[in-house]
Amino acid sequence: MPGMSVRATLGIDIGGTNIKGGVLDEQDRLLARRAIETRAEEGFEASFARIVALIEELIAEAGIARSGITAVGVGVPGPMDHAAGVVRHAPNLDGWVDIPLRTLLSERTGLTCVIENDANAAAFGEFVGGTQRTATDMVMLTLGTGIGGGVILGGRLVRGRFDNAGEVGHMIVAIGGRACPCGQRGCLERYASANAIRERLIEAVRAGETSVLAPQVYGSEPLTTEDVCRAAQEGDQAAERVWEEACRMLAAACVNLQHVLNPGLIVLAGGLINAGEALLGPVRRAFTELTWKICEDYPRIEPAVLGGDAGLLGAAALAREALAQRGA
Amino acid sequence: MPGMSVRATLGIDIGGTNIKGGVLDEQDRLLARRAIETRAEEGFEASFARIVALIEELIAEAGIARSGITAVGVGVPGPMDHAAGVVRHAPNLDGWVDIPLRTLLSERTGLTCVIENDANAAAFGEFVGGTQRTATDMVMLTLGTGIGGGVILGGRLVRGRFDNAGEVGHMIVAIGGRACPCGQRGCLERYASANAIRERLIEAVRAGETSVLAPQVYGSEPLTTEDVCRAAQEGDQAAERVWEEACRMLAAACVNLQHVLNPGLIVLAGGLINAGEALLGPVRRAFTELTWKICEDYPRIEPAVLGGDAGLLGAAALAREALAQRGA
Repeated sequence: MPGMSVRATLGIDIGGTNIKGGVLDEQDRLLARRAIETRAEEGFEASFARIVALIEELIAEAGIARSGITAVGVGVPGPMDHAAGVVRHAPNLDGWVDIPLRTLLSERTGLTCVIENDANAAAFGEFVGGTQRTATDMVMLTLGTGIGGGVILGGRLVRGRFDNAGEVGHMIVAIGGRACPCGQRGCLERYASANAIRERLIEAVRAGETSVLAPQVYGSEPLTTEDVCRAAQEGDQAAERVWEEACRMLAAACVNLQHVLNPGLIVLAGGLINAGEALLGPVRRAFTELTWKICEDYPRIEPAVLGGDAGLLGAAALAREALAQRGA
Repeated sequence: MPGMSVRATLGIDIGGTNIKGGVLDEQDRLLARRAIETRAEEGFEASFARIVALIEELIAEAGIARSGITAVGVGVPGPMDHAAGVVRHAPNLDGWVDIPLRTLLSERTGLTCVIENDANAAAFGEFVGGTQRTATDMVMLTLGTGIGGGVILGGRLVRGRFDNAGEVGHMIVAIGGRACPCGQRGCLERYASANAIRERLIEAVRAGETSVLAPQVYGSEPLTTEDVCRAAQEGDQAAERVWEEACRMLAAACVNLQHVLNPGLIVLAGGLINAGEALLGPVRRAFTELTWKICEDYPRIEPAVLGGDAGLLGAAALAREALAQRGA
């Protein structure tokens, strides 16, 4: 009978806009994949019911016997207690405060569940599924609306004492610098996230700098980070300055990661890497300029290759790993 | 017969001035301890012969049968290839370039040898032997002439891809800041090491700032870091500014370590911690000011407790660990 002997793991990646799910076999092949809207404004109970339905649909679609599902790994955006399986607070999901998600989901589905920070899950997904399979140490920086990330050392995800490791976007790169909603000043995220790049260009124009983007800053057509990147490439001075500074701050963060962890690989992920060489080139050049010269212990700085599926893949892989550690 | 059934491990800590050695039993008790001069200027062969003699003296002094010595762990100041057992370059030891120390020492003594970076060994020593035994994750910053350190996660020393992890003194805390002999600018070490604090006070006075320390800057009596600390405590403005900035840079580095690794414990070690509360107070206050407010995932910031024996203790503990991993 089909699927009788197949063992598979589910990965769920909860985002503010979409919830993605996938079924992976033991060779990390996607047997099924689905995405639904989060509808975060409907509150926890509604989102939870949609996640449960998604899990059932995925199992049906993959054609796997329920007994063949080893576990469900769930990536959640926000601080959590990994061991207790409790989501402390997901800022982009209405009503997600102190939710014992692991227990709730296990009870409702009858499946073993594991929850992870979504950025950590994405980093682990890129680690196990990306072309970086040969590395044992890797740090990922996910450059999106904000900057998240994950640290993998010796093939294992680093969670830290409070399950908050990998918050690389809040490394301080400019003491006393730009204010961040987190309460700090000078966070990497305030210079090198897609949002920050857009905001800084707008600030520059409003402060009187000339730029080909001024009509968009003052007009009705929205200004995007891609616009800033393109203008920088075309020699617009304001855009160039903002873009170069973002790359320089990223490079400084990479230097600090080099010295603290000495990883062989730093991966840049998230929407910003669509800029391709326009991002990687300046980051690598600034890294070479900023880093020390006494020892060539430099990490490779590479773009992520998995894209949007890294989160669900990593959540599934981490769930499988958790099972293996329990000896299941 | 005495010592027949006792098993012990040797730890050797090679410094630019002294070489310290100790014999530890399986409960980490020091059975013997000795320190000799390094005489680095005499070159590698001479230093090596002195280390071999030190090992023999320690074994004799501890009264342990040679067959009871499980291994020798050696901490060396400088980059190395841990797996190959080769010291690449120890800048403070004349002629120590590409030395296959592990093999040489094993051949000469007939004992199993393991080499480690000295700062990493000291961090591991503080981890296993300090009062922090309950922590599983710890980062140590050793504030001496320069700033070194070590990272322990899940009870294991992090070495990194090139055995250079824990170089926390070269985290960039001020992009484009003070030049460092390593080739970078704005390294933590250029603001918060004992040397940097002294140098910065001298620079301030030479630049025209008034200070009670001016006579020492211009006179024959040497200015020490302790003098700067004392003057800062007594309200000297130049000294206060230099001291506070050192503490602030240290705090910023601690914030970055918090976000990348989320350790439960950050330990400050080295000569500078003799300042006691004059150091810890401002570092902790600046940390509280600089760090985020959205999640109280703060590490404890504590002084080291082992002092000068941390290096030999850690070298011995790491050698024992290496044996255990080989199943010996």
